[in-house]
Amino acid sequence: MTRVAVLSGGVGGARFLDGVVRALAPGAVTAIVNTGDDLEHLGLYVCPDLDTVMYTLADLGDAERGWGLRGESWHAMDAVRTLGGPTWFNLGDRDLGTHLVRTAALRRGEPLSAITARLCAAVGISARVLPMTDGACRTMIDTRDQGTLAFQDWLVRERAPAVTRVRFEGAPPPAPGVLGAIAEADFVLLGPSNPYVSVDPILSIAGVRKALAEKIVVALSPIVGGRAVKGPLAEMIPILGGREASAGAIAAHYSAIPGRGADRGLLAGLVVERGDEAGVVGPAVLASEIVMRDRDDRVRLAREVLGFAERLGEGRA
Amino acid sequence: MTRVAVLSGGVGGARFLDGVVRALAPGAVTAIVNTGDDLEHLGLYVCPDLDTVMYTLADLGDAERGWGLRGESWHAMDAVRTLGGPTWFNLGDRDLGTHLVRTAALRRGEPLSAITARLCAAVGISARVLPMTDGACRTMIDTRDQGTLAFQDWLVRERAPAVTRVRFEGAPPPAPGVLGAIAEADFVLLGPSNPYVSVDPILSIAGVRKALAEKIVVALSPIVGGRAVKGPLAEMIPILGGREASAGAIAAHYSAIPGRGADRGLLAGLVVERGDEAGVVGPAVLASEIVMRDRDDRVRLAREVLGFAERLGEGRA
Repeated sequence: MTRVAVLSGGVGGARFLDGVVRALAPGAVTAIVNTGDDLEHLGLYVCPDLDTVMYTLADLGDAERGWGLRGESWHAMDAVRTLGGPTWFNLGDRDLGTHLVRTAALRRGEPLSAITARLCAAVGISARVLPMTDGACRTMIDTRDQGTLAFQDWLVRERAPAVTRVRFEGAPPPAPGVLGAIAEADFVLLGPSNPYVSVDPILSIAGVRKALAEKIVVALSPIVGGRAVKGPLAEMIPILGGREASAGAIAAHYSAIPGRGADRGLLAGLVVERGDEAGVVGPAVLASEIVMRDRDDRVRLAREVLGFAERLGEGRA
Repeated sequence: MTRVAVLSGGVGGARFLDGVVRALAPGAVTAIVNTGDDLEHLGLYVCPDLDTVMYTLADLGDAERGWGLRGESWHAMDAVRTLGGPTWFNLGDRDLGTHLVRTAALRRGEPLSAITARLCAAVGISARVLPMTDGACRTMIDTRDQGTLAFQDWLVRERAPAVTRVRFEGAPPPAPGVLGAIAEADFVLLGPSNPYVSVDPILSIAGVRKALAEKIVVALSPIVGGRAVKGPLAEMIPILGGREASAGAIAAHYSAIPGRGADRGLLAGLVVERGDEAGVVGPAVLASEIVMRDRDDRVRLAREVLGFAERLGEGRA
């Protein structure tokens, strides 16, 4: 059986992951999910990327909004507003159920990885979903004009003001299973997530880079035609990557990390939107339609990427 | 201006309090509310009696259910159920807004009394509502067959198994304003709440009994025709009070506490249901219709009780 590990942030990563899970045999996929974006809000421990992955794999997510649950209601937040509480981070009523159960379990001392496994089982997910760590690793954003902000304060509350640097506070060990899943994987896929704030946090966890350096690693570009599919990535690349936003910038970012890819960088391959091949230096390139419009699209793309990775593993790409 | 302090538990106390607030001038009433029933549940700090008082005074409460908010929905708890979380203590979606805002403020270090004042102001309550304490005082129930249970575990989760003793864990100081409100009051009213688990916790707070011993104190009987208007009180009285459930047993309970009432017990007066006068020894008795069916009923009863207390204060009852 082909075994795959997928490193994922939120929306884009979750959709691609869903395609991979549907394209392979049950038990073939382990998702390793960014938790650098986690926040404590209104007394609750919220894991936006884990939740997006869980809701997406369980087919409970709201595709239009891009986060949270389908058919969601907002009565609790309306009450919070009436009572003068903070409403900049919106939590739906059903979504609150997740945060309540998780927070209570964390307060009892259960590790996030065990809680995540329980929640995913409860909604019928067959893939293994792991947080990158059970510890605290916080993605902190140094901004040009507003000092240092925690990730959600930066992205949601302040609407992504100009970034000068991304840092990760805390150096917790990987969650149980993370390094093993990478070691056992035939290849590792990096979802079309923001490299700076969604994938790099996972790469910052002790042992992850070393484990990846032994593997065939294929990334999907989150940049299509010079623009981010979602979020503020395109504005971050010129400052953090020192070049215009492009699939080539994504290749350059990951290729600076040692691995067994082209020129001994991390990436064996990069999957880009057709027309974006120019400027990608280093990894082998697969050009396709990488913006996933529906579930069929996710599975189609996953199959293409898996085939590409297999050919790379056999030295045929 | 007549100044009144009302000691209150949940439903019955809150309804009577609402009548008192509507019967008097704005600013005349301070409610001192039991917090011995508070619980941490699903990571949230829940104050059932404070919430019932707040919702009742703001006319937001669900009269039929007796707790929580009118027009409530239950999506979050449905999600908790799906995810295998505990559902024995039901929290509505709008109600969750209260717990979220309060819990977040407590975690920031704001005292419960300050939070309560803010929340009450936000929903337009003019009366002053004080928790009995900003500290932890937990009503613990020794049961005959199930060991010691925290109050809500006993009442809600286990459905009130036979009690052998009620204890209060923790001896925190009164919340700011509690002793002053009693000292300034022309009289103090004890709502028709369970004496053992709703009023006694307030009386256990340091300085409260001493402050009450200087005052005209009038209680409303929570027992009508030998039965509790609500809850397991009637079953508790034979064991904890050593006699059959009756208005007389309520009088005997409070009269054992020193005060300036009849025979130097706590109560100057007791308000009972017409027909329940027999067996009340000690305090002056006012017989009326004390089961409050609607808001008019609350105000009518409050006026009768206030008149009774005034006459007692003037030595005319």
